[in-house]
Amino acid sequence: MGLLVIGSIVLDNIETPFSKVENALGGSCTYVSLAASYFTSPMHVVGVVGDDFPKKYIDMLENHNIQLDGLQVVEGGKTFRYGCKYRYDLNVRDTLFTDLNVFQDFRPEIPERWKKDSFVILGNIAPTLQLFVLDQLENAQFVVCDTMNFWIEGMKNELLKVLKRVDVLIINDSEARLLTNEPNLIKAAGLIMKMGPKYLIIKKGEHGALLFGENTIFSAPAYPLENIFDPTGAGDAFAGGFTGYLHKTRDLSFDNLKRAVIYGSTIASFCVEKFSTERLEELDKLQIHDRFVEFRELSHFDDNG
Amino acid sequence: MGLLVIGSIVLDNIETPFSKVENALGGSCTYVSLAASYFTSPMHVVGVVGDDFPKKYIDMLENHNIQLDGLQVVEGGKTFRYGCKYRYDLNVRDTLFTDLNVFQDFRPEIPERWKKDSFVILGNIAPTLQLFVLDQLENAQFVVCDTMNFWIEGMKNELLKVLKRVDVLIINDSEARLLTNEPNLIKAAGLIMKMGPKYLIIKKGEHGALLFGENTIFSAPAYPLENIFDPTGAGDAFAGGFTGYLHKTRDLSFDNLKRAVIYGSTIASFCVEKFSTERLEELDKLQIHDRFVEFRELSHFDDNG
Repeated sequence: MGLLVIGSIVLDNIETPFSKVENALGGSCTYVSLAASYFTSPMHVVGVVGDDFPKKYIDMLENHNIQLDGLQVVEGGKTFRYGCKYRYDLNVRDTLFTDLNVFQDFRPEIPERWKKDSFVILGNIAPTLQLFVLDQLENAQFVVCDTMNFWIEGMKNELLKVLKRVDVLIINDSEARLLTNEPNLIKAAGLIMKMGPKYLIIKKGEHGALLFGENTIFSAPAYPLENIFDPTGAGDAFAGGFTGYLHKTRDLSFDNLKRAVIYGSTIASFCVEKFSTERLEELDKLQIHDRFVEFRELSHFDDNG
Repeated sequence: MGLLVIGSIVLDNIETPFSKVENALGGSCTYVSLAASYFTSPMHVVGVVGDDFPKKYIDMLENHNIQLDGLQVVEGGKTFRYGCKYRYDLNVRDTLFTDLNVFQDFRPEIPERWKKDSFVILGNIAPTLQLFVLDQLENAQFVVCDTMNFWIEGMKNELLKVLKRVDVLIINDSEARLLTNEPNLIKAAGLIMKMGPKYLIIKKGEHGALLFGENTIFSAPAYPLENIFDPTGAGDAFAGGFTGYLHKTRDLSFDNLKRAVIYGSTIASFCVEKFSTERLEELDKLQIHDRFVEFRELSHFDDNG
């Protein structure tokens, strides 16, 4: 059975202090499924594009064992387009435009034979759509969910309904604080766990990530990157690597979730090394393994003092 | 031989959202030497107070194997006094007053028989005073140095002279960025290493700490604290625990420096649990060991997937 991925597929215009790119492949669905493709297969993607969506991107995704039976192509429609510009330290990005286009009326219909998929990633889309997806699934055993400040502020009630039905929520630190109105991250995590998720991952950018289980915490370091070329998609790549590894291993112990967090961090650290999905298109398993080992060396110590 | 500690001894008025305290024991010398006292002995303290300095504090410090032969007591003088108020999330503190008093004219004269001490902690005092100390030492084998934004902005040339002569610089992330004018912490660290220190520790508060050696990085997690009662002195406690452990073990390998960073983090995590030095006065070695083990569980993962 495949790994079901629901989210956006976007054509991005991205400007960083170093360079810029137009009509680059983007969107949560894209980054998630490409990242996951290095661990497991097949990915079952449900998304929507217009008939302007470049054939080369379809080919590239299919070459990564990403199945697109659930991709809706709207005749005469235009693909979701997003433009942003990063400030000098890459920590803040200003949105230049958001043209939802065909994504405005997206209804994520799951193809019949994918409804039995047990591993699901709900990318960062409206909580109403996330609920619409969950209602179609007969066999969801492990649901990983992303969200963002826009939904926390604008659709909190619907988001809370989603949270009761997911196994892992992945958000960043400012979103965790926003969701709970609690400045202390550890307390905020405790409050979010009470909202429903069995596990919570709080991403902290250059400071790594925290994984919370019942009465357990794991702190993952960030990979020390001197040069971040384009931060776009790093969070989605994390979610894809994390869930892809779990889908492959089918081991939902906390120890294995820790490893999954490191694999997610590994893929995210590669993602930001080039524009758009470029780096995620060309990885190999040895590179991923080597960086996983680097993460261990970065964070381990022994007590044989 | 002892562990030489030079720094301030202060009477603090501290106000947090939870409570407040007046004339509490504070200052870098105090926190550093108390923290170190759980790992090694004796501490050789060089500092200055007025004759208003409470006898009970002297007794408490001496009970922790802290030797005060280098403590200058100025007849008719008043002890350095500092007042601050923390904002609601404890991340920002506003200074209410800084009365340097006898500290204004402090000249850290090292007692003759301590000049051979090989381990030295230069607490956060003026770089000119740090240089004055280094000039008196005949045998400094391992010098750990703290500083702050005030000296980076006001005495940068003198600070750069200090950095050429220290083994470990301990600063926080905003100070590292200020010192180098570089937003990327990893790049900033590289620039600071070129200024002289063999090792660099960048403290990141709730995000842990980074230890940099030549071509090596160690990322230490923060202990997940739900309730921080008073952040005052945490950085000094870190420096004391770190250096105290190294002074005890006399092992300056990178692997042992990693452990020292975890012991520093351990002591700092205790420090913030109560006001002032209260928690640092009452620790025992079992508590410290247990928390060290918790740090390992917090950050370790294995690859037997």
